Amino acid sequence: MENLKISSRTPHPLEQLSVAEATVARDVILGAHSKTVIDFRTISLEEPAKAELLPFLDAESEGKLSGVARPRRLARISYDVLGENKKYGFYESVVDAEEGKIVAQDLIDEKFQAPLVLDDFGHLLKAVWESKLFTDAIAKFNIPEGFEVIVEPWPYGGRDLEDEDKRYFQGLCFAQDKRNGNPDSNFYAYPLPLIPVLDARAKEIIRIDRLGTGGKDDLLAKGTHAKDIIEHCKGSEYVPELLEGGTRKDLKPLNVVQPQGPSFTITDESLVEWQKWRFRVGFNPREGATIHDVRYDRRSIMYRLALSEMTVPYADARAPFHRKQAFDFGDGGAGSCANNLELGCDCLGHIKYLNAIDTKADGTIKVSPNVICLHEQDNGIGWKHTNWRTGRAVVTRNRELVVQFIITLANYEYVFAYKFDQSGGIMIETRATGIVSVVNIDPGKTSHYGNVVSPGALAQNHQHIFAVRVDLAIDGTNNTVVIEESHPVPFSPERNPAGNFYEIIQTPVTKSQGFDAAPHNNRIVRIINPNKINPISGKPVSYKFQPPPTQKLLAQPGSIQSRRAQFTNHHVWVTKYRDHELYAAGRYTLQSQDEANGVTDAAKRGDSVENTDLVLWSVFGLTHNPRVEDWPVMPVEIFQLHFKPGDFFGGNPSIDVPSQRNLSSILDRDSVVKT
Amino acid sequence: MENLKISSRTPHPLEQLSVAEATVARDVILGAHSKTVIDFRTISLEEPAKAELLPFLDAESEGKLSGVARPRRLARISYDVLGENKKYGFYESVVDAEEGKIVAQDLIDEKFQAPLVLDDFGHLLKAVWESKLFTDAIAKFNIPEGFEVIVEPWPYGGRDLEDEDKRYFQGLCFAQDKRNGNPDSNFYAYPLPLIPVLDARAKEIIRIDRLGTGGKDDLLAKGTHAKDIIEHCKGSEYVPELLEGGTRKDLKPLNVVQPQGPSFTITDESLVEWQKWRFRVGFNPREGATIHDVRYDRRSIMYRLALSEMTVPYADARAPFHRKQAFDFGDGGAGSCANNLELGCDCLGHIKYLNAIDTKADGTIKVSPNVICLHEQDNGIGWKHTNWRTGRAVVTRNRELVVQFIITLANYEYVFAYKFDQSGGIMIETRATGIVSVVNIDPGKTSHYGNVVSPGALAQNHQHIFAVRVDLAIDGTNNTVVIEESHPVPFSPERNPAGNFYEIIQTPVTKSQGFDAAPHNNRIVRIINPNKINPISGKPVSYKFQPPPTQKLLAQPGSIQSRRAQFTNHHVWVTKYRDHELYAAGRYTLQSQDEANGVTDAAKRGDSVENTDLVLWSVFGLTHNPRVEDWPVMPVEIFQLHFKPGDFFGGNPSIDVPSQRNLSSILDRDSVVKT
Repeated sequence: MENLKISSRTPHPLEQLSVAEATVARDVILGAHSKTVIDFRTISLEEPAKAELLPFLDAESEGKLSGVARPRRLARISYDVLGENKKYGFYESVVDAEEGKIVAQDLIDEKFQAPLVLDDFGHLLKAVWESKLFTDAIAKFNIPEGFEVIVEPWPYGGRDLEDEDKRYFQGLCFAQDKRNGNPDSNFYAYPLPLIPVLDARAKEIIRIDRLGTGGKDDLLAKGTHAKDIIEHCKGSEYVPELLEGGTRKDLKPLNVVQPQGPSFTITDESLVEWQKWRFRVGFNPREGATIHDVRYDRRSIMYRLALSEMTVPYADARAPFHRKQAFDFGDGGAGSCANNLELGCDCLGHIKYLNAIDTKADGTIKVSPNVICLHEQDNGIGWKHTNWRTGRAVVTRNRELVVQFIITLANYEYVFAYKFDQSGGIMIETRATGIVSVVNIDPGKTSHYGNVVSPGALAQNHQHIFAVRVDLAIDGTNNTVVIEESHPVPFSPERNPAGNFYEIIQTPVTKSQGFDAAPHNNRIVRIINPNKINPISGKPVSYKFQPPPTQKLLAQPGSIQSRRAQFTNHHVWVTKYRDHELYAAGRYTLQSQDEANGVTDAAKRGDSVENTDLVLWSVFGLTHNPRVEDWPVMPVEIFQLHFKPGDFFGGNPSIDVPSQRNLSSILDRDSVVKT
Repeated sequence: MENLKISSRTPHPLEQLSVAEATVARDVILGAHSKTVIDFRTISLEEPAKAELLPFLDAESEGKLSGVARPRRLARISYDVLGENKKYGFYESVVDAEEGKIVAQDLIDEKFQAPLVLDDFGHLLKAVWESKLFTDAIAKFNIPEGFEVIVEPWPYGGRDLEDEDKRYFQGLCFAQDKRNGNPDSNFYAYPLPLIPVLDARAKEIIRIDRLGTGGKDDLLAKGTHAKDIIEHCKGSEYVPELLEGGTRKDLKPLNVVQPQGPSFTITDESLVEWQKWRFRVGFNPREGATIHDVRYDRRSIMYRLALSEMTVPYADARAPFHRKQAFDFGDGGAGSCANNLELGCDCLGHIKYLNAIDTKADGTIKVSPNVICLHEQDNGIGWKHTNWRTGRAVVTRNRELVVQFIITLANYEYVFAYKFDQSGGIMIETRATGIVSVVNIDPGKTSHYGNVVSPGALAQNHQHIFAVRVDLAIDGTNNTVVIEESHPVPFSPERNPAGNFYEIIQTPVTKSQGFDAAPHNNRIVRIINPNKINPISGKPVSYKFQPPPTQKLLAQPGSIQSRRAQFTNHHVWVTKYRDHELYAAGRYTLQSQDEANGVTDAAKRGDSVENTDLVLWSVFGLTHNPRVEDWPVMPVEIFQLHFKPGDFFGGNPSIDVPSQRNLSSILDRDSVVKT
C-alpha cells in the first residue's frame, strides 16, 4: 500500500488547505490590495480542474504516481474591498499557495451578493440596538419584567426589484425569559411581530417590518396584535435542567464498543479506506463535507459527491414572509455553519474527527475542530438465508461507514451523512431537526399559514428542497444515464398469453435535461458505462437509484420564490461536466431574484450527454406542515437517497462478510418458555 | 403497577395458546370426529371479538379490572377429515379451551383450499421419487457425477379453470453438487427445466411441466435446452466454509453492550412495556407476530397491527410461470415459516425471545422456540439544537424498540419488524433477502423475463406487494380517515399576492374505499379522532402516514395473477371494522382464482367510515428486476412504513430523553489536527 501514499509533506491535491497554505493565500491578497481595506469572507481549497486531477487520481489508484504531474495547490479567497468613495468591491480570487501568486482575480458583478458570513450578522445585532426605529417599536409592547428581546439574524430573502443594488439583512425578534438565569432558555416560544431590516453597507436599520398576528378570519391584515404581545405565550424548554420533571429515568445505557478499534483508516487527513472502499473526504465553507474519488476494489464509482443546495421557502402569504426563503448552502454556506462536534455525544462507538479551517474578517486563519465525524454503525441484518432442509442459517450484519456533519442555521439543524455499505451501496442521508420557525399569533386563533405548536406561536408551513450533485464515474468518466421503467404489456398470444408479463423499457438520456420521478412506472435512473459489459448478465455495468417522488416547489411559477429556485422544477437533472459547476441554484443565491448559472442553465445548453463525462443532480424534499410534536425541538425527519450497483459487480459484494455470532450479545430466553 | 397485571395462572385474552390449552382443543376435536382420520393443520388462539375484548383492555389500562368480564380462551383449529369414500373435508372449528367444548364447526366450501403445511410438501417430496414420469424425465438429462437432484416444493399458484376442485403442488428442480460433502452447497445455482406436479389428494405426480430455457429470440418456445443441462452453470456458494478465499478479515467487532440490561420488560409472555409504550405481542401461524392494544401513556393508539398479506407474482410469460405467484401469508402462513432464532446472531445487544406453539398433523403440540425477538437499538440522532449564541448543544439519541420475526419461504426470506420510537412513532419495516428464484437459461443467451445472475441461471423479474392491516384506535375507536394534501394557490391580491402561499386541503373519507398515494400532492393519510381536539393547535388529535407511492401490480387486469390479488389495486384501503376480517387477499389464497372476502370485498360494502371503528390497510411493494449483485444471496432491500403522531401530543414526546454523552464512545482526534 505504500506506493498509494504521497509524502506527508506534500498535501494531496484534494486535502483541505492547511493553516499555513491559507495564510500564504491571505498574505498574497493583502499584498495585492495594499491601499484598501479588506474584509475576508472565506479561504478554501480551489479544487484542481478535472483534466489535471483525474490522471493523477487514476495513477494514484494504480500505484503508478511516479512521473505523473501533481496539480498545484490553489486557494480560493472570497473578500470585500472597501475602495475609494467607500465603494465596495466583492472579489473572488485564486492564489497558487505553493508559489504565492495570484492566478485569477475576479471582481464580482454588482448584481450578485456575496454569501453572508457571521460578521454580517454581527453588524445587524449591533445596529438594532443603536436604532431608534427599533427601540421605539419595541417600546410599544409590554415586554414583561425579566424578559429580554433577542434578535435573530436572517438573510433578507429574494429582494424586490427596487432593491436591486442593496444588501440587506433582517432580524426575527423574540423575548427570552431571563428569570431562570439560564442563557439557553428557549426564546423562540415568545415571538415578537416585528422585523428590523439592516442596510448592510450603511450598517443601519432602515425599516421595521410589522408582522400580522391574525388568524383565518384576518386574511392578510396586519397589526391585529395586542400590546401584551407575549402574555398568551408559554415557556417551552428543551435544555434538560429546565424541563419540568427533568429527563426520563427509565432509559438504560446502550453502548457501542469496538474493542479492536474501527475497521477504517484515515491517512493524509483525507484518505479513507474501509471494506474495499477508498475515497477522499474534503470540506469547504459552501458544501460542508465533500466526497471524492470513490473507488471500490480500485474500480472508480464517483468522482465527486456533495450536497449542492437546499432551499426552504415559507408559505405564509402575508408580507414580508414572501421573502422568507433560505438557501442554506448558497446564502451562508453549510460548511461555515457546521457544528464543532466537541461534545462527543453526537455519535456512538469509535469516532474519528476531521477539522477544517476558518477565516475571520481580518484574515486570521483558525482551525475549526471536529467539523466532520466518521464512525461505523450496525444497520441490522445484511443478508440471510436458511436452508430449511438442513436448518442451517447464514446471516450477516449490515455494517456501514458514516461520514457525517451537522449544521445549525439559527433555529434549525440538519444532520447530513454519506454512508457506505458492504454491498456496494452509497447513501446520502439528511435529518432535519432543530426548532421550527414560529411567529406570533393572537390568542385562540388558528391560521391557514401554519399550525399553532405552542400558545401564541404559529409554526409556518414550509418546504425543504435539497439538491445533491453526483459526479459519477462508473469504471471511468464515459457514462450514459438511462431511464428505466417497468411497464405492463397487453394480452397477446405471442407476447403475453396469461397477462403476467411486464417489460423493462430503457430510454437513454441523450441531451442535458431535467426530468421527474415516476414511481408508478418504477422509474429507475441507471448510470451505465456503455463501454463495459458485465460478463455474467451481458449488460453494461451500472449504478442506479430510484429518484424519490417528493413534492416539488409549491410557489407559483413566476413568483420570486420560484424564480430563484428553478432547480426545484425537476427531480433529476443530467448535465455535461464542467469544472466549477457545482451549485444547483447558482453560485450567488443571497437576495437573488433569479437562479443564475445553476443547474437549469447548465441543462439548457442541450449538451450531448451520451457516453461522456456527465453529472447527475438529484432533487428531493419535504413539505413540512408542522405539528405540535415538532415543538420545542422537532424529532428528526429522515430522508435517504440510495445509490446501488446494478450489474457492476460479479455477485453480491457482501457475500464474504463473516457471519459469526456476536458473542457480546445476550440471549435472554429464561422467562418465555411456554408450558 | 400491580393492578395492571392479571394472575399468572389466568392467561391474558391476547396471550398465545399454551401447549396445555392447545392440547385441550385438539382432544375436543378428536372426540368430535372419533370415527374418521384427522390431519391437523394449525391450532392457534381465536382472538376474542372486539366488543368483548375492548372493554376488558380499557379496564385493564385504567387498572379497574375487577368485575369486568374476561373474554373466554378460544382456540381455532384447522384440520382435514378423511371421511367415508375417501372424501376430504376441510374444517375450521373453534373450541372453548376453558370448558373444552366446540363453539363453532365449519366445513369449508370445496372451492377453497386449506393453506399448505409442511406435510403437504412432504407428500410431494415422497411422490416425485416414486414417479416414473419424473425419473424418466430426469434421466433424459446428463446430470454430472457427484450431483444430486433436489426438488423444491412450491404452491401451485392460481389454478386454471379445469382444475377447479383439485389440490396441486409443484416442485422446482435443481441439482446439488455433493462433491464438497457440504449439505448446504447452493443447489439453486444449477436449475433444471422441469416441474413435477403433485395431485395432493391422490399423492401422485400427474404431470411434468417442461420449462423453456431460451432467450430473447426464442419467445415462448420450450425445449431449447440441451441434454447437458447444467454444464454451463457455475457453483455459487454462500456458506462461509465454501467461499473461495473465505470471509473477509478486516471487519473488526462492533458490540452492543447494555450493562444494565434492556429498558423494556415482558410480562405475562405478551405484555411489553417500554418508554411510556405498552402493548401486547401475539403470534399466529398466518400472520406471524401481531401487535395489540398499543397505548402510550395509557392513551390508545392502535387496537391491532399486523402484516396481512404479500403476493409475489412472476413476470415470465412462458407457461407454467403465469402460475408462479406466491401469497406468502395466505398460502402457507408467515408464522408457520418463521425462523427459530436460535443461533442468536440475528441481532445485537440484549435480546429477549418469545416462543410459539406448533401443531403436527397427528395433533402433537410442540413449542417452537424463539420465533420473535425483541431488542433495543440506536438509530442515530433523535433531535438536536445548538444555541449558536452560547454554543450549547443539546442532542439526544433515537432509541428504538424492535419486535422482529423472520420467515423463510423456500429460497427467499423476509425480515419483518415493528419498531417503536421515543417520539411516538411506529414503523413497520420489511427486509427482503434470501436467494432469488432462478430458472435455467441456455449458454450465452439473455432474456426479456429476467436477468442472468450466474451462468445458466436466469433470475426472473417479479414483484413483492405487501399489505399491512392497521386497526387504529386514536384515543378510542371512533375515528375518521382524512386525506390531506398540499396544493399550490393561484396568484391573487387577496389570497396569494406574492405567489408563495400554498394551502392544505383535507378530504374526509366517508365511505369504505380504496385510494392511491399521491406524492406530487404530498398526500398524507391522517387518522383523526374528531371528538378530541388538541388544545394547543385546535385540531383533532391524529396519527398520520404518507402512503408509499410504489408501483402497483403489473399483471393485466383480468389475468389470474391480478384477479387473485385485487388488494393490490390501491395503495390504501379504508374499511369498517368487522371481527375476523384480517386478510387483504381473503382467508383462502392457495390456488385461488379470485380474491374472495378480502379487502376489496370489504371496501365494496360502502359502509360509512366516519367517526366510527375503521380499519386502514396500507399496500406497498417492490418491483424486483434482479441484478447480478442479488446473487447468490441478495443484500436486504429495506422498506419502511412510518406512522407518526400529528397533534396527538402536547409537544415532542421525546423532549425528556436524556442527552448525556455516552461514556463508552471513543473520541479519536489525535491524528487529525491541521497545522
